[in-house]
Amino acid sequence: MTQHLSSSAEHSTLIDKYETFLFDCDGVIWLGSKLIPGVKESIEYLKCKGKKLIFITNNSSVSRADYVKKFAKFGIEVDESNIFGSSFATAVYLKEVANFDPEKFVFAIGGKGISDELESQGIKILSPDFPQIENLDDISGIEPDNRVGAVVVGLDVKINYAKLAFAHVNIIQGDSYFIATNSDSTLPVGGITFPGAGSLLSVLKSSTKKDPVVIGKPNQIMFDLVKKSHHLDLSKTIMVGDRLDTDIDFGNRASVDTLLVYTGVTDKTLASNSDIKATFSMNSFGDISLLKQ
Amino acid sequence: MTQHLSSSAEHSTLIDKYETFLFDCDGVIWLGSKLIPGVKESIEYLKCKGKKLIFITNNSSVSRADYVKKFAKFGIEVDESNIFGSSFATAVYLKEVANFDPEKFVFAIGGKGISDELESQGIKILSPDFPQIENLDDISGIEPDNRVGAVVVGLDVKINYAKLAFAHVNIIQGDSYFIATNSDSTLPVGGITFPGAGSLLSVLKSSTKKDPVVIGKPNQIMFDLVKKSHHLDLSKTIMVGDRLDTDIDFGNRASVDTLLVYTGVTDKTLASNSDIKATFSMNSFGDISLLKQ
Repeated sequence: MTQHLSSSAEHSTLIDKYETFLFDCDGVIWLGSKLIPGVKESIEYLKCKGKKLIFITNNSSVSRADYVKKFAKFGIEVDESNIFGSSFATAVYLKEVANFDPEKFVFAIGGKGISDELESQGIKILSPDFPQIENLDDISGIEPDNRVGAVVVGLDVKINYAKLAFAHVNIIQGDSYFIATNSDSTLPVGGITFPGAGSLLSVLKSSTKKDPVVIGKPNQIMFDLVKKSHHLDLSKTIMVGDRLDTDIDFGNRASVDTLLVYTGVTDKTLASNSDIKATFSMNSFGDISLLKQ
Repeated sequence: MTQHLSSSAEHSTLIDKYETFLFDCDGVIWLGSKLIPGVKESIEYLKCKGKKLIFITNNSSVSRADYVKKFAKFGIEVDESNIFGSSFATAVYLKEVANFDPEKFVFAIGGKGISDELESQGIKILSPDFPQIENLDDISGIEPDNRVGAVVVGLDVKINYAKLAFAHVNIIQGDSYFIATNSDSTLPVGGITFPGAGSLLSVLKSSTKKDPVVIGKPNQIMFDLVKKSHHLDLSKTIMVGDRLDTDIDFGNRASVDTLLVYTGVTDKTLASNSDIKATFSMNSFGDISLLKQ
């Protein structure tokens, strides 16, 4: 059972109990382009208390540098080293875990967030000049390229058939890694959803009949990378998030405590009907701002 | 167990036994742009014997008119009424089975084959002017449209995020039909595969968590439409195809006899390892041309 924390005393006890706070961003810190009330002050309170704050996001479309700018826009100072995006984590996974051949290239379905982060780790990106695909006859120009060592799939609002076809032929015919930044099926934007990275990924899962390595929450690759970078003491670490199937499951699988907030996609009914249970819940992380410094 | 037919006597007995021959095209009649040797003469032989020939294809990218032209290019005369493509079948399904509201529009992910066939049945197509999607901020311009009564998904080599997003919001927020021309996960082109209509479809299955009505083989909607149009006597009908999971399964489910040919994607090893069994097999339907008229 999840313990709902509503009094200042309960909030204060929560803060005192942990050294490291892992945060999801959208639905916890902000909603799209709007800061959630009180969260800026709550973060300042944690900083004053000497807590370590790490922001973990599945959003592959932005780099750590982009996140620092977004926090700054809300008046929150955050260091790049405390941000773990799924694009950055993918780059670190390829370099440090997969020992990616530095002579090889990555073909990425995704935006600038992915290419910036891969390049930040010294990984080369292949950007082929695809033929214009007007009809089926044009497809035959797309062939595997032996320079490709990995196909990385994230959210790509410029997705097209040539990219999907090139990714497909390299996954089935080469010995490329097949990696997904995250498997979120939808992307919430302004109250409605759109197809997410995980849904675009399903094209290639279906066509290649291969399963990618998925980096983002709730998968533990992301957690292992954070843990290694920040030397986490699991008993003093808590994961704060608004999504049961990504954030809370992520923390539960990693055996850290979890805090569900109701400022994002999950309401109390959804939470009580789910098999995934957080350790604690709060209406908003902004409520921490009510604690006296 | 499948009975392999190799002698002229066996081939002749086969032809005499059936009145109606349902054919898959690619892998049986032709391979891409090449006619399979002997098939033209085999078809002429069947015509001389007074057999009814119906061509049933999952390829949604071409209309019946396009198929007539393709047959003509090979010197084979075929009437449009004897061709059942998945796009045509989708149009007939919408009009005759779903009683599609004539005031509503279809939003189609797919090429000219789909729009031509829908329009041939008097169904209106919505072709919105989508905003140019350069980044995530541009998505919010995509909203459900209450003129949309059905979202139809086939193979679309001009797929893009705006189309997927518009299809998604109309499926989840409206009361639109969600229909797929076929669910083939791959598209074989010149010896290798590319993502097929079924794989593009998986984006929307994943993002909307809804299951489409799938028209094409092996689904029985297609068979029911053919049966109704041509008043088939099932005991005198045989389905000829090269794919076990579409053609042969299609015939088996419809309780008609089936003939597997080895001129397409299935070889003898694959056939013997599969749970899906044809009634008969032949090396090539072109072998029928060796029978004396």
